[in-house]
Amino acid sequence: MAESMKGLRRSHRCTEVSRNNVGETVTVMGWVQKSRNKGGIIFVDLRDRSGILQIIFEESDIGSEGFAKAARLKSEYVIAVTGRVEYRSGAVNENLVTGDIEIRAHDLRILSEAETPPFPIEEDSKTKEDLRLKYRYLDLRRPDLQRNLMLRSKATTVVRKFLTEEGFLEIETPMLTKSTPEGARDYLVPSRIYPGNFYALPQSPQLFKQLLMVAGYDRYFQIVKCFRDEDLRADRQPEFTQIDMELSFVDVDDVIDVNERLLKTLFKECIGIDVELPIPRMTYAEAMERFGSDKPDIRFGMELKNVSEIVKNCGFGVFTSAIENGGSVRGINAQGQANMPRKQIDSLVDFVKDFGAKGLAYLAINEDGSYKSSFAKFMTEQELADLVNAMEGKPGDLLLFAADKDDIVFAALGNLRVELAKRLDLLNKDEYKFLWVTEFPLLEYSEEEGRYVAKHHPFTMPMDEDLHLLDTDPGKVRAKAYDIVLNGTEIGGGSVRIYQSEVQEKMFEVLGFTKEDAYNRFGFLLNAFKYGVPPHAGLAYGLDRLIMLMAKEDSIRDVIAFPKVKDASCPMTEAPSTVDDKQLAELGIAVVANKEE
Amino acid sequence: MAESMKGLRRSHRCTEVSRNNVGETVTVMGWVQKSRNKGGIIFVDLRDRSGILQIIFEESDIGSEGFAKAARLKSEYVIAVTGRVEYRSGAVNENLVTGDIEIRAHDLRILSEAETPPFPIEEDSKTKEDLRLKYRYLDLRRPDLQRNLMLRSKATTVVRKFLTEEGFLEIETPMLTKSTPEGARDYLVPSRIYPGNFYALPQSPQLFKQLLMVAGYDRYFQIVKCFRDEDLRADRQPEFTQIDMELSFVDVDDVIDVNERLLKTLFKECIGIDVELPIPRMTYAEAMERFGSDKPDIRFGMELKNVSEIVKNCGFGVFTSAIENGGSVRGINAQGQANMPRKQIDSLVDFVKDFGAKGLAYLAINEDGSYKSSFAKFMTEQELADLVNAMEGKPGDLLLFAADKDDIVFAALGNLRVELAKRLDLLNKDEYKFLWVTEFPLLEYSEEEGRYVAKHHPFTMPMDEDLHLLDTDPGKVRAKAYDIVLNGTEIGGGSVRIYQSEVQEKMFEVLGFTKEDAYNRFGFLLNAFKYGVPPHAGLAYGLDRLIMLMAKEDSIRDVIAFPKVKDASCPMTEAPSTVDDKQLAELGIAVVANKEE
Repeated sequence: MAESMKGLRRSHRCTEVSRNNVGETVTVMGWVQKSRNKGGIIFVDLRDRSGILQIIFEESDIGSEGFAKAARLKSEYVIAVTGRVEYRSGAVNENLVTGDIEIRAHDLRILSEAETPPFPIEEDSKTKEDLRLKYRYLDLRRPDLQRNLMLRSKATTVVRKFLTEEGFLEIETPMLTKSTPEGARDYLVPSRIYPGNFYALPQSPQLFKQLLMVAGYDRYFQIVKCFRDEDLRADRQPEFTQIDMELSFVDVDDVIDVNERLLKTLFKECIGIDVELPIPRMTYAEAMERFGSDKPDIRFGMELKNVSEIVKNCGFGVFTSAIENGGSVRGINAQGQANMPRKQIDSLVDFVKDFGAKGLAYLAINEDGSYKSSFAKFMTEQELADLVNAMEGKPGDLLLFAADKDDIVFAALGNLRVELAKRLDLLNKDEYKFLWVTEFPLLEYSEEEGRYVAKHHPFTMPMDEDLHLLDTDPGKVRAKAYDIVLNGTEIGGGSVRIYQSEVQEKMFEVLGFTKEDAYNRFGFLLNAFKYGVPPHAGLAYGLDRLIMLMAKEDSIRDVIAFPKVKDASCPMTEAPSTVDDKQLAELGIAVVANKEE
Repeated sequence: MAESMKGLRRSHRCTEVSRNNVGETVTVMGWVQKSRNKGGIIFVDLRDRSGILQIIFEESDIGSEGFAKAARLKSEYVIAVTGRVEYRSGAVNENLVTGDIEIRAHDLRILSEAETPPFPIEEDSKTKEDLRLKYRYLDLRRPDLQRNLMLRSKATTVVRKFLTEEGFLEIETPMLTKSTPEGARDYLVPSRIYPGNFYALPQSPQLFKQLLMVAGYDRYFQIVKCFRDEDLRADRQPEFTQIDMELSFVDVDDVIDVNERLLKTLFKECIGIDVELPIPRMTYAEAMERFGSDKPDIRFGMELKNVSEIVKNCGFGVFTSAIENGGSVRGINAQGQANMPRKQIDSLVDFVKDFGAKGLAYLAINEDGSYKSSFAKFMTEQELADLVNAMEGKPGDLLLFAADKDDIVFAALGNLRVELAKRLDLLNKDEYKFLWVTEFPLLEYSEEEGRYVAKHHPFTMPMDEDLHLLDTDPGKVRAKAYDIVLNGTEIGGGSVRIYQSEVQEKMFEVLGFTKEDAYNRFGFLLNAFKYGVPPHAGLAYGLDRLIMLMAKEDSIRDVIAFPKVKDASCPMTEAPSTVDDKQLAELGIAVVANKEE
């Protein structure tokens, strides 16, 4: 039977009580972490979101009825305790903030009893994630998840404070908006008033924030939910949160400046990390060339080297034919890994196949300077020496090569480099290496659609010096687009936007849109652009990933209170679910297929 | 042709330039509010979100090319100007912050030209709202809307700062969640992965915030979008924003305490209003009795009086039969309105008919003490004198009476009272009168469903002293529920929640749910409640309405950047809209009805 807390008022959270309160009477409330009877004294560890506090119950203090009640306490009971703060009678517990004190209880109320939970409430849970997600309200009691969500709350507080002080206004944009055929798949919401019509949930507030610039709001931000109905990978959610911003009367450097200061403030105030400014910048071209990735992890080296010049005339057909077909041969040096067992090398070969590579060529440099290699027999001593030299290979090193079209070579080696770093434990989560990647290509050619498509979005500004290439060689045009990368993860990105209608028209032409197409798709933005547009630019962070990295977690599910799993369902609420026929009838829609049946 | 802002950097917003900058060179950017050539000098009012700044162009400063460019300027062109700050050569404009200075331009760039907008960009626009909403990006340039959205941004900043300092964590809850059959109509989102299944957009984060309390987060808040697919009234939007909070280990007074301090801080910091604490409290019963409303506007009197005792034996059948049927006769005194023309009184009679009343009886007290009345002939002199006395009627007053069942009398007179106050201009928007309404009924009887339904929601805690009535007289049970009312508008409300499973079970019993029903509807919450629940309570504000009152606007559309209109459509984006058949096919749904065809 639950007791009432009538007449009681909590005086402290558990770890707000300290040796400074010794001698005082306090009232604390929380969950029983554990309870044990040792020699006629009942010891209870009381838990709240602040931490743990030890309570002791002795019959002489609390009376026989109270002591009997204390004897009934089990894990996860919710209790209120009033008692005197004392120095601990037993040994000090160095692991607890409150390890030198305890509360000698003289009053106890059991506010709520509890069944035994399906898994223990403890840090670094070994319980399978499925079960934890089903009982998310219990999982969320674990101190590590509580720390993560408290960090997340702190982080958004710091971001908001910083941005408002910088003159940004937080302005809400609609959730029920219009479906646009460009981009990822929309989540749709049927209209009841206009059956057959649908809203779409926003993939981002992009068009609205640009309209706010047209409307003169100057600096906008929002921490906002966005939606994409895509098949989920490990680090994706159907709904995710962006820190979204847009600025007027700025160019690339202004956006980078304010965001560098934002990141410095955020990391310092939330996790005590000093971000050195300026954050290094690297062009997209350099990032691909050196790291095979547009989001390089620069915590470690193992950079790609282009060895095409050295091997272009060698006797190894895999190498030479790649080059003849317009591709390249590039390698990375896994230092000290010459003795990697063949089986592990084979698993690396399998790994790169996922990225379209046909295989990996390897050359291990033995301690005696001799080689063990899959291709040495096709090459001269001199060619091999030149190759090893180009790769800065030393005895004990393992050189790994891919030969193919550039994009496949980059994808294979860029990902292999990170995979090796994981296997070799080179990734230090305590180290935070930021990088701006700039000058992204404006367009990429879509074989599927037989036309150029916008790499960022169709409103991204070309670089001034490449504007003339829009007519002659659109694939070469670089954009005023930038990503902010942290430890190999893209945490944010944005661009300067086109604000001149003549450039915008050219852009649509290159994308193969007729004027009518363009108006059908983006009419209200194009109309808005007729009435005076300031130069503007913006950036959006993926908040979930940012917090994941700050919390040193491997999954964004660990920094989201109620996440969904891979099939976009919620194991706790069992959403999505079937609904009443009446609800569908009101919307004028019918279910025509059901994969589950 | 748009010019680039390359090499330029804005030094100030328009009204950041002041007499302190006289003699300095500044660069400002914004929109041309107006431009005129007066005696060879071009005067331009430059506008940005901060306000207006006067620029002067003379050929001797800017050269012939620059002057020619300045001569081309029209309203809404976006320009960048560099020039020297000077004291104004002409008369000081007292209406402008920058009225004593001007910028003598020596460089001008036209960043964007503009067509003539479809309506003038000016305060207190006379343009019809339809047109303004279609061109919302232009409407949002108007200084009054800009002030409203800046106020809104400021208000959420202040709320967040206050709540985080009070130990609240901001935690995001899901937007894609489970449809629950209780409450208003859900917006549904079809699942692609499980065709035939649907998410629902949240009507509020109610269940999630209670789960966060179960999970030990202690104090939660969120400023969050909520959704209800209802037919829209003037002050409703299909998506609206709540300031939502929940607290553990508290009772009514704790929630009221923290919210009073929040409101005081908010109104002081945002609009300079001192809210006197404590805010008065009134029970639901008293509010109905005195004001005929559970959200009384206490800026003016005109309270309801129950005159049933006086008239119960009179000769006027309308009065006596209402009382015999268990109803009452109540009146209000419209002071000084004895001479209201008969036509206006008739319009008041029509007005109350909307609330179910059959009519209004009136009695005007002439200056000479005689009466003009619709019912005097049915009553004795003494009865009339007693009635006038009970109503505190004085010569010149108009007494208005309704006789019916109590709920109809309350609705009729409660609304009539406010309507009269509007017509008589008694409502001062500069006055902010807060009121807590407490002790709401726990249940109300639904004739339609033939059972009691929860007035707030089924998790609301009964008042301790009424618990025993749950079995014997459930309609009499009062709840630990409270609303915060400002100037006759409910701006927020909440309750203490049930945390004891035995009370919860009793509550479901009274609502006529079987245990199975209850689990089908709220299973995950009920399961959660098995594992230790803290006493908890919460409150949610309607942010849109709150800001509307702070901004002294009459419509929430004036405090929302991109609002929807009555049919839940957006005139600017034209959402909702039809979508590709492919999109519907992927979702496994089909349109079966289309009212528009």
